[in-house]
Amino acid sequence: MAFDYSPLLSAAAPPPAVRWSGFPRYNFVGGHNDSGAVPVDDFIEASRRVLARDGQNLATYGLASGPQGYRPLREFLASSLERRCGMRQTADEVLVVSGSLQALDLVNDVLLEPGDMVIVEEATYQGTLQRYDRLGVQYIGVPLDEDGIRMDALSGTLDRLKSVGMRPKFIYTVPTVQNPTGSVMPEDRRLEMLRLAHAHGVPIFEDDCYAELTFDGTRPRSIRALDDQGQVIYCGSFSKTIAPALRLGYVVADWEILSRLIAAKRDGGTGALEQMVMADYCVTHFDDHLSRLRGVLKEKCDAISDALAAEFGTAAEVSVPKGGIFIWVTLPESVDTMKLFQAAMADGVAINPGAEWVADPSTGRNKLRLCFGHPSIADIRDGVAKLADICHREFGLPERSGNVGRGD
Amino acid sequence: MAFDYSPLLSAAAPPPAVRWSGFPRYNFVGGHNDSGAVPVDDFIEASRRVLARDGQNLATYGLASGPQGYRPLREFLASSLERRCGMRQTADEVLVVSGSLQALDLVNDVLLEPGDMVIVEEATYQGTLQRYDRLGVQYIGVPLDEDGIRMDALSGTLDRLKSVGMRPKFIYTVPTVQNPTGSVMPEDRRLEMLRLAHAHGVPIFEDDCYAELTFDGTRPRSIRALDDQGQVIYCGSFSKTIAPALRLGYVVADWEILSRLIAAKRDGGTGALEQMVMADYCVTHFDDHLSRLRGVLKEKCDAISDALAAEFGTAAEVSVPKGGIFIWVTLPESVDTMKLFQAAMADGVAINPGAEWVADPSTGRNKLRLCFGHPSIADIRDGVAKLADICHREFGLPERSGNVGRGD
Repeated sequence: MAFDYSPLLSAAAPPPAVRWSGFPRYNFVGGHNDSGAVPVDDFIEASRRVLARDGQNLATYGLASGPQGYRPLREFLASSLERRCGMRQTADEVLVVSGSLQALDLVNDVLLEPGDMVIVEEATYQGTLQRYDRLGVQYIGVPLDEDGIRMDALSGTLDRLKSVGMRPKFIYTVPTVQNPTGSVMPEDRRLEMLRLAHAHGVPIFEDDCYAELTFDGTRPRSIRALDDQGQVIYCGSFSKTIAPALRLGYVVADWEILSRLIAAKRDGGTGALEQMVMADYCVTHFDDHLSRLRGVLKEKCDAISDALAAEFGTAAEVSVPKGGIFIWVTLPESVDTMKLFQAAMADGVAINPGAEWVADPSTGRNKLRLCFGHPSIADIRDGVAKLADICHREFGLPERSGNVGRGD
Repeated sequence: MAFDYSPLLSAAAPPPAVRWSGFPRYNFVGGHNDSGAVPVDDFIEASRRVLARDGQNLATYGLASGPQGYRPLREFLASSLERRCGMRQTADEVLVVSGSLQALDLVNDVLLEPGDMVIVEEATYQGTLQRYDRLGVQYIGVPLDEDGIRMDALSGTLDRLKSVGMRPKFIYTVPTVQNPTGSVMPEDRRLEMLRLAHAHGVPIFEDDCYAELTFDGTRPRSIRALDDQGQVIYCGSFSKTIAPALRLGYVVADWEILSRLIAAKRDGGTGALEQMVMADYCVTHFDDHLSRLRGVLKEKCDAISDALAAEFGTAAEVSVPKGGIFIWVTLPESVDTMKLFQAAMADGVAINPGAEWVADPSTGRNKLRLCFGHPSIADIRDGVAKLADICHREFGLPERSGNVGRGD
């Protein structure tokens, strides 16, 4: 006789998880990374060094570094972020978090109440939108082009909200390797965005999770680097640059707001071994590792772009990403990617349907996101071919539209 | 010109954190552990082995083990918990969490709404009470004796709530090395508690975080082990048995409720390195490590008990703990431990004032909790002597009441 919990559940309790049954055969979802690119030997060496040096500090919450995280890691981040994206900060302005998902949660905890309004990019990270939905927070998506958020549209949106007396809590943006379009916002547009944010008194929440993965290794300064008023909350992550299983991210913000985020964290700290090993590893290896990883990802990006061209031809319109691990694809109007998602899953091909990656689901109906970081190049080719077959079977897309160019 | 975030803050935003300025000189708070007892060399060896074996799985969220956590760790836990506390489960009924604080959060997320009622022990973990306060959840404390919750009182509380039509969401209990009294609830009382829980249809949330640290190495079966109706949600942690900085805990529950907790987790998984290293380390070393650690903690417990007797004499009434890392002290009525906390902090001695560790603050007014796991034995002696001096100075307690027995 099993106890029945159902009358006791909170109204906000999520639907039950289903039992995990392994990864799909062709896994184009989830933001996983290339297994071969994990620098296992260097991690072993870093573990040995850092544990010998600091292992006894594991006996204390916060590693004797306080609630902001392991000090050597914060020091690395402070200098690395200055070098790479032009932000100047000390370790005291860095908060280590348990993955950038926790950064989202903390910012939401501190700034958002039900009914609040947030401005997002019209296509953006699903996890962010799900969080706003769960919190009862409204959002408006601003149109994107190949350089990220369109500033005329952002200006119009801010004006419209102002005209109805609504001050958005912040603008959430992924300016560098935008999720899912892979665009990089140029610096002049970042300056324009800041000008608008200042004029309207609206903070910017800059999510820079993929920013180190531009294929050419260059990137504009972060929006936070360009701001002199502390109006930008910045977050980043080691999930894509090193390994997602590590659960290691970071927030950089002015103390007024950072002190609130620290207070909201209340989790006894972020996992210590990841912090320690990354602190040791990154000082000597991070830049070299990034160079190698960019090469691996570029090769996979080329493979999926070529496969899409070969298998779908003109039926697939692709935003060629400037970096990162995903590609955003628009199929003909006849394809409902929510249905494609179901049919493909049944055949072992996992995709992100576009409707889950946009602020207004109707605009994502015939779009999809494909992550290419994890599958092998052979699996990328086979998986895309399989997807094309399914599109032919289920939606009548021309068979192997791009066959002309095949045979390599 | 710094941006002003204050008009944008959520009403629920916590007060800002203060800048961390290091640990107090005599640190009797925070649940830290003995630095010398961290098995650093074994961790290095475990890191080497497990990274060589499974390091490439870091490239995937969840280490290719799904959202419940690294499968080898869950398998260790399933068998270890059966051996140590008589619970039978497979790895599929274990959820790895980021410290037991996350277990508290997940159970709260799934079961609690503002206005709900929870039954707690009259003296209990501050972090639990703070969470209920923040959620707007009510709680009633049930009196304790040297064997934990008094069942006559629990029965009366359940009856009284029933008579006013209120069904508590669960009973939160720390039955094995109770926090803060250090008692261990005997098995017959656990069975009586289950009988009451079954009769009233109220689940039990069993927090077993300190359970492996009984000084004599024995413990009763867990309440969950004695239940055949799935009415007990069980959580434990590696924070006190291994190291608190690791942020590694676990929940065991029937699938109906576990599947909700998994769904509520939404954090991309718990830190992978800690999971991997602990899985490897624990299989071969956990039991031996626990034996050693129990010895270290018993020695410190004896030291603080002796120091309290020597410095306070009959002015300090002590609940002698059966295990763990803290001791619960009652001082004369004249001592307000909130004031003592302030005065002691100014002198570099950190204590937990009793009012923060009880359901009804008035009952904790002259009580305090002292953690003895982290300070050295010399610091335990000096810190307790300093505390006695402060009590003499601020509250007129007799000077060095127990001096008779000193001189060792």
